[in-house]
Amino acid sequence: MKYVYHFEEGSKEMKNLLGNKGAQLSEMTKIGIPVPPGFIISTRACVEYLSSKKINDEIVQQVKEAMKKLEESTRKKFGSENNPLLISVRSGAPISMPGMMDTILNLGLTDEIVENLAKTTNEWFAYDTYRRFIQMFGSIVNGIDENKFEKIIEEEKKRENVKKDQQLSVNALKRIIMHYKEIVDVPPPEKQLFMAIEAVFKSWNNERAINYRRLNNLPNDLGTGVVIQAMVFGNLGNDSCTGIVFTRNPANGKNNLYGEFLLNAQGEDIVSGKRTPLSIEKMKDIMPEIYDELNKVAKNLEKHYKDMQDIEFTVEKKKLYILQTRTAKRTGMAAVNVAVDMVKEGIIKKEEAVLKITPNQIEQLLHNQIDPLAKKKEKAIAKGLAASPGAAFGAVVFTADDTKAYENTILVRPETSPEDIEGIHVAQGILTSRGGLTSHAAVVARGIGKPCVVGCSEIFIDEEKKQFVVGDRVVREGDVITIDGTTGEIYIGILPVVKAEFTGNFSELMNWAKEFKKLEVRANADNPEDAKISQDFGAEGIGLCRTEHMFFKEERIRAIREMILADSKEERKKALSKIEPYQKEDFKEIFRVMNGLPVTIRLLDPPLHEFLPKEEKEIKELASFLGVDESSVREKIENISEFNPMLGFRGCRLGVKYPEINEMQARAIFKAMIESKKEGIKAIPEIEVPLVGDVKELVMIKKIIEKAAEELNVKRDEYKIGTMIEVPRAALTSDEIAREADFFSFGTNDLTQLTCGFSRDDAGKFLPLYVEKGIYEKDPFQSIDKKGVGTIMKICVEKARNVKQNIEIGICGEHGGDPDSIEFCHKIGLNSISCSPYRVPVAIISAAQASLRHN
Amino acid sequence: MKYVYHFEEGSKEMKNLLGNKGAQLSEMTKIGIPVPPGFIISTRACVEYLSSKKINDEIVQQVKEAMKKLEESTRKKFGSENNPLLISVRSGAPISMPGMMDTILNLGLTDEIVENLAKTTNEWFAYDTYRRFIQMFGSIVNGIDENKFEKIIEEEKKRENVKKDQQLSVNALKRIIMHYKEIVDVPPPEKQLFMAIEAVFKSWNNERAINYRRLNNLPNDLGTGVVIQAMVFGNLGNDSCTGIVFTRNPANGKNNLYGEFLLNAQGEDIVSGKRTPLSIEKMKDIMPEIYDELNKVAKNLEKHYKDMQDIEFTVEKKKLYILQTRTAKRTGMAAVNVAVDMVKEGIIKKEEAVLKITPNQIEQLLHNQIDPLAKKKEKAIAKGLAASPGAAFGAVVFTADDTKAYENTILVRPETSPEDIEGIHVAQGILTSRGGLTSHAAVVARGIGKPCVVGCSEIFIDEEKKQFVVGDRVVREGDVITIDGTTGEIYIGILPVVKAEFTGNFSELMNWAKEFKKLEVRANADNPEDAKISQDFGAEGIGLCRTEHMFFKEERIRAIREMILADSKEERKKALSKIEPYQKEDFKEIFRVMNGLPVTIRLLDPPLHEFLPKEEKEIKELASFLGVDESSVREKIENISEFNPMLGFRGCRLGVKYPEINEMQARAIFKAMIESKKEGIKAIPEIEVPLVGDVKELVMIKKIIEKAAEELNVKRDEYKIGTMIEVPRAALTSDEIAREADFFSFGTNDLTQLTCGFSRDDAGKFLPLYVEKGIYEKDPFQSIDKKGVGTIMKICVEKARNVKQNIEIGICGEHGGDPDSIEFCHKIGLNSISCSPYRVPVAIISAAQASLRHN
Repeated sequence: MKYVYHFEEGSKEMKNLLGNKGAQLSEMTKIGIPVPPGFIISTRACVEYLSSKKINDEIVQQVKEAMKKLEESTRKKFGSENNPLLISVRSGAPISMPGMMDTILNLGLTDEIVENLAKTTNEWFAYDTYRRFIQMFGSIVNGIDENKFEKIIEEEKKRENVKKDQQLSVNALKRIIMHYKEIVDVPPPEKQLFMAIEAVFKSWNNERAINYRRLNNLPNDLGTGVVIQAMVFGNLGNDSCTGIVFTRNPANGKNNLYGEFLLNAQGEDIVSGKRTPLSIEKMKDIMPEIYDELNKVAKNLEKHYKDMQDIEFTVEKKKLYILQTRTAKRTGMAAVNVAVDMVKEGIIKKEEAVLKITPNQIEQLLHNQIDPLAKKKEKAIAKGLAASPGAAFGAVVFTADDTKAYENTILVRPETSPEDIEGIHVAQGILTSRGGLTSHAAVVARGIGKPCVVGCSEIFIDEEKKQFVVGDRVVREGDVITIDGTTGEIYIGILPVVKAEFTGNFSELMNWAKEFKKLEVRANADNPEDAKISQDFGAEGIGLCRTEHMFFKEERIRAIREMILADSKEERKKALSKIEPYQKEDFKEIFRVMNGLPVTIRLLDPPLHEFLPKEEKEIKELASFLGVDESSVREKIENISEFNPMLGFRGCRLGVKYPEINEMQARAIFKAMIESKKEGIKAIPEIEVPLVGDVKELVMIKKIIEKAAEELNVKRDEYKIGTMIEVPRAALTSDEIAREADFFSFGTNDLTQLTCGFSRDDAGKFLPLYVEKGIYEKDPFQSIDKKGVGTIMKICVEKARNVKQNIEIGICGEHGGDPDSIEFCHKIGLNSISCSPYRVPVAIISAAQASLRHN
Repeated sequence: MKYVYHFEEGSKEMKNLLGNKGAQLSEMTKIGIPVPPGFIISTRACVEYLSSKKINDEIVQQVKEAMKKLEESTRKKFGSENNPLLISVRSGAPISMPGMMDTILNLGLTDEIVENLAKTTNEWFAYDTYRRFIQMFGSIVNGIDENKFEKIIEEEKKRENVKKDQQLSVNALKRIIMHYKEIVDVPPPEKQLFMAIEAVFKSWNNERAINYRRLNNLPNDLGTGVVIQAMVFGNLGNDSCTGIVFTRNPANGKNNLYGEFLLNAQGEDIVSGKRTPLSIEKMKDIMPEIYDELNKVAKNLEKHYKDMQDIEFTVEKKKLYILQTRTAKRTGMAAVNVAVDMVKEGIIKKEEAVLKITPNQIEQLLHNQIDPLAKKKEKAIAKGLAASPGAAFGAVVFTADDTKAYENTILVRPETSPEDIEGIHVAQGILTSRGGLTSHAAVVARGIGKPCVVGCSEIFIDEEKKQFVVGDRVVREGDVITIDGTTGEIYIGILPVVKAEFTGNFSELMNWAKEFKKLEVRANADNPEDAKISQDFGAEGIGLCRTEHMFFKEERIRAIREMILADSKEERKKALSKIEPYQKEDFKEIFRVMNGLPVTIRLLDPPLHEFLPKEEKEIKELASFLGVDESSVREKIENISEFNPMLGFRGCRLGVKYPEINEMQARAIFKAMIESKKEGIKAIPEIEVPLVGDVKELVMIKKIIEKAAEELNVKRDEYKIGTMIEVPRAALTSDEIAREADFFSFGTNDLTQLTCGFSRDDAGKFLPLYVEKGIYEKDPFQSIDKKGVGTIMKICVEKARNVKQNIEIGICGEHGGDPDSIEFCHKIGLNSISCSPYRVPVAIISAAQASLRHN
């Protein structure tokens, strides 16, 4: 039975036998990349060991033979004092698995060998390496508590009065080694090797690994491979070096080697920052042949892996070794440029380019970012939830009104409410101390693409004093801060901001994505500005236009309140007739921007008390405006309040009880449509009834809308009537509802609240813990909970399509902009998604990727 | 083609052809009941008329022949002045349908004939009959507005200065007829007949009838029959009479004829109350042969229809005619006695007896009732929702504390909260001005079988003044009122109350029901008293024992509050250790009562803020008890408050975050179990985890419980662990959850709130309107919404049974006591239902009926 494979014998297809790491090293070897030589003990050997509880003779024999071959190819000798072969021993399962033994470096060292190593390299390095080896060996192979080693080091640091390990003297390292050896027995090299191999085998069945497999539903009988590889040293003189190189520029994607290296050094030296590395460009002068070879290797790896690589290398005495290569991290801009360039270079196809961009990279691209260099120097004073991406700075203000008091402002509130809308528009950014990623501030900010950080519980706001406290620092109105909505960080002062920038490659990529996607991508937009932005970003219509946001402007809110507090239908109608012209104008403006594209308009949805004043002053004003006494206004406000407003008198329930409200809205829509037509604008309204739970509700509201249309001579095929699917009951009875609806739109925010039984306003008390404990994989308000909400969505789609094959079904919750959710929507066969204007490109890419992945 | 059928030719099976009414009259004729003779024009004729728009010659011919035969059998002549045959013409469709033409009586009258009728009967009766005939004919056949007739009558009443129609003089009636004839043309008898027939045919397609069919999904092409029957007169002398008779006593069920009659009178005379009728017993003396015949007819009808009948009869010149028979209304007591007696008499089988009792009748039987006679005399001052049946009287009090201030009290509150529990127990009855049938007061009152009226919005409570106002009447603390929880009525003073009484027949019937039912019937009980009552009523276990109700007793609530406001796990544990002994004792007492029967104990469920004080005084007390300052208590209370508590931090979410709470509860349960065992009591706890939405929550809490059991050496088969199914997501992922659960219990209150998307505390603003408009057939909080909630329940049961065939599934929401819902639960294959103790007999009967109907 063959248990041991040299890298030359394997390939990336042999993962099951060689483990992931071993297969990758084999693959690189196969395509001629100069990796340090080595071999793999196969997973088969591990399985055999686990059943027999010993490493059988055949395995021992094969390992010894492989070691011999390794000695030959490296021209070193394992256990030799003069020319020692040092090796690394690593575990490598077919599926990478935290909790298993990882790596022992420099195996093969002994007291005698280290002395020689100290002479040929440098003393500090040699003894530090030996110290590390003993520590790794002791803790991993012998299972000695890490703390014991740390304690020994701490004592030496105290003794030498230094803070960092690197500051210890060589003598200190020697003393440490002495103390280590009091608790760790360092056997001769061959014994080291087999003990390490056995430790790797055993680690397959340690508790953490078993738990991990159970939780992730992975098989228990795969076993792990053991990768044994020669160590190479970049610190053997000035013909040696070590470095990190990107195959292209990770900041902008330009096609040049990019990176740095250090002569006569080991990898740690670059990270520790003790010496300043040189730009990789300099290598051209110092070791031109190596540079050329590196360049070739880079091209080779890129072609082979079809992506930009991040490569670690070491040169040991003029010989280049590649230690590791992996897909390179990059900025959004680089990602786009690299992908499009690679298509042009013939390395990848358009489909692959589209699949290569992460939605997050697209998102990054659209917003201003704090200069990464600046972020390295400045420390954030607090961190909240990254609610809406982008960077913004401005003077701190604490009320919506004050946002006009300075040129640039950051609005800081405990949480925002619909009354703050104007302030949110005016400010450069929003910061709240409460609320989650779907709180009011977060939703509105994302909707208008404004940087926003929410739930920053580290800051304590004192609204009266107009200041907030964080730690022992007081930030007062007018003080300038910078917020990073991409990361949730808050900084004092102005940090340099890198402007969002679109290259030609971006629009090329977006065009490819549009070609591949099946889902129609629309935007949620309540006003002409947002409608315009979403169209510029490629939206194919408006998927959700919330009429209530229009109600908060000052001149309207009074009439709304008058309507809400009316005692009779007549009074209500009178108040509504004041609002109608405003609504009509709003719709007209949106129709103008969206000329020829569909606009889904949702009828009034929120509970009426959201429109009523909360503060004494406002109540007084309202009473005097209505000519009634304050106490009666207060009483009505109280009567209209609710225990669970989310489950209260809202949505189409308003229209069922007060048909005149929807009547007014329908009239405003149709009048806007007619007037637009006269101006040569084609309006395509799709009127959406919210919170339907039973088809009869839809039928009632539908009649109101159709009557308004008839009275204004609008034909039935000039508009559509559909419904939100946000109440579980609607999803469950979608067959009945489909018969009466031209379209459905999943309101997954409310559908999630109701299906999971938690309010997004209150879930902050337990939802983070739930995600942490893995009860929910992700926050279900950010990414569709496929198991619960997804199941009910599938039921809904199936039932509806059963009675109306071609009914248009979309989604317009916050999830419409989430890549994972978009993929799900594609898979269950929705027709469209709708998201905030600034997420349209993300949605287009995600839709294209979903389509390419699941045809 | 045969279009016309004499009563002798039909039977009850021929509904489609003869219509319901015609088929019934035929059936009676067939079994020898003396009904006035007549015939039916079939639905086929109607369908023919509706397509040809005329009554064809064949139909005309057959009607004329049938009239001839009718003249022969009545020995009267249609249109004759001396011996006129008068007839009634009625519509009668296969399915009874409001909105269609109903009845024209005394057709065949003319000016000439009425004069003769006046001579042979009495003048007033004759002219009043004629007046009515013209009015019916005019409005039904000619479509004249009823108001025109009413106006004419009103003028005559003014002229004679009388208030009631009956007080008009004969001359007035004659003047009215004169005026009527100015707007109605009274044709000769034969024309009257055919015009009436045509009117019946046409009424099939009037708007109301069409709407009715559309709404109820009835076919449009059935057509209606026309029933033509000879009129008979009980006012043709002292050998004539009219009366109403029950085949048994409707009050107590005794097997004697029961009823009353009036000599020389028509049916209206009994109803109008102008003359006092005689008891039917008297007939034995006055017309013994008729009494005997009536008695025989009664027995005959009972045997034929297998039920107690309510019979209208007329004797015309010594000849008995049965005008109508129908199933008699009866009290609960009568219903039980009649059903059991009929089994003994061999008329029906046990199964039929069980099916004959309505659940409402059982309910009535269990509660004191206001004497029906007293209710006829006294007027209610207000009417609310009948929340918990039974009658109670007492002094009005406005706080829970004051319930002890008088011997009998009625607790009057705007609404109740958990803090009022003790007061609710002490008071004789509860009256609230707010809240619906599932409000706190309603649920608690039903749970303990206490009369309760809720949502009585006509009363205005002033808590400070300790009074309520209704209309212009002020009711102060100490004033005595009587409430009727069966009807929702409120009376001033004490009304006589009829005590609930159980006969031997009741337990006999219940035993039969237990024999037939498949569902296990349990009760919701939180304390030993309720547990005892439910057992007496036949409960087979406790299906829901809510631990939190135990927390409100004075000595405990402090420790609870201490626990809630704790800052650390240690503090929480300290407070919990104070509560544990109380919980243990509570469980022990319940176990003792339920010895050997299963007790489902639900772990802590409500949001914690429900336990916190609301009033300033209480907050002060709590702060001083905890030794902290008030503002910090207030701050914590505010932090813990929620926007939508129903969707908040509650249920198993509490246990996931604070495992120590459930740990304490599990320990208390197991300790109680162990101590019970020592006393020879067998405790069978089934521990229930509330508000589970994902199996992982259940797994976490399960571990806590199992650990507590292990530590106390309780074996795993001595208790069960299950979960409530109340979150839609749990129902949708029931396969996963079933793997970890020993049992499920549907919490249909919350499941309804979440599936339909409305809070039961707020739905009062629209739900009544929704039921009124037919959007929901019934209040979904009273009766399971089968279309929505029922669908998700079915999905849940199927998925769960797929992975665990025998998992026990029950229901414990308010719906567990609703007959319709019980039937549904039986049909979808649940194992058990649980309801309030006082509804156990209702549930048993309903379960038996469901089993008999669907097996």
